[in-house]
Amino acid sequence: MSVTDQYLLNNENYAAGFTGPLPLPPSQNVAVLACMDARLDVAAALGIGEGEAHVIRNAGGVATDDAIRSLAISQRLLGTREIILVHHTECGMLTFTDDDFKQQIQADTGIKPAWAAEAFPDVEEDVRQSIRRIKASPFIPHTDAVRGFVFDVADGRLNEVK
Amino acid sequence: MSVTDQYLLNNENYAAGFTGPLPLPPSQNVAVLACMDARLDVAAALGIGEGEAHVIRNAGGVATDDAIRSLAISQRLLGTREIILVHHTECGMLTFTDDDFKQQIQADTGIKPAWAAEAFPDVEEDVRQSIRRIKASPFIPHTDAVRGFVFDVADGRLNEVK
Repeated sequence: MSVTDQYLLNNENYAAGFTGPLPLPPSQNVAVLACMDARLDVAAALGIGEGEAHVIRNAGGVATDDAIRSLAISQRLLGTREIILVHHTECGMLTFTDDDFKQQIQADTGIKPAWAAEAFPDVEEDVRQSIRRIKASPFIPHTDAVRGFVFDVADGRLNEVK
Repeated sequence: MSVTDQYLLNNENYAAGFTGPLPLPPSQNVAVLACMDARLDVAAALGIGEGEAHVIRNAGGVATDDAIRSLAISQRLLGTREIILVHHTECGMLTFTDDDFKQQIQADTGIKPAWAAEAFPDVEEDVRQSIRRIKASPFIPHTDAVRGFVFDVADGRLNEVK
């Protein structure tokens, strides 16, 4: 059985206990931008209930243009006001460089991606970089409540980046 | 108290019961690309355990270039092989058009985004569009196991898009 099929079986149990539907706009007016890392269960780690918060995730939890797109839609159309950034310790993005990754893809496929891979050598500094990108964006109207954290994969704690 | 501060308090409880760390590569070799919607708890709805799967999320769950970036890193550096796409019913992306959204931003700020908002009028067709983008990408090596679903926010079920 594929993992996908196993997760579909899991979904039958989930649906059996489901109580919905909830309203579309996030009830807590917050958006989270976090890394895709498998060890980070965003809802569990922050205690986010269903219907409360948008959760945006990508490789690194980086404020890419696509994350800005999602945050713009979140704030402008669905009323969120706070933004929480979550990077984490032992991130895969610390283990390579954009140049090496793109050269490897070019060596394998003949084509070099036109996008940045967004690898970073310092997780706290990348949280600050993402905060700066969000505050500098003309498309995100509410940037008074943007805070960034590093999730520690060893102890489960969120540590704020100042 | 801000919502962020409440979630930090929740995190103290989470960390108190935390058992880690887990290995970096996803143990189930799967990546999920899902919408950021607040009503969709991806880990709960699919029964994904911590450490098992990458979870990528954006407005719509669309296979944007940034999602392709994340999937390329997931497969090429961290060994995932299956991809699960999750859109959902009553999605906010069904409620506007790219042109209207971008004109509103231009009217408010004077600046029109250089990116597509990725709104869509048909959720199942957008799942198919995202599958086609993934299969067409030269940067994602493993596309034999890409399946797409629509999560029903009324009953919690995942319905496969054929």
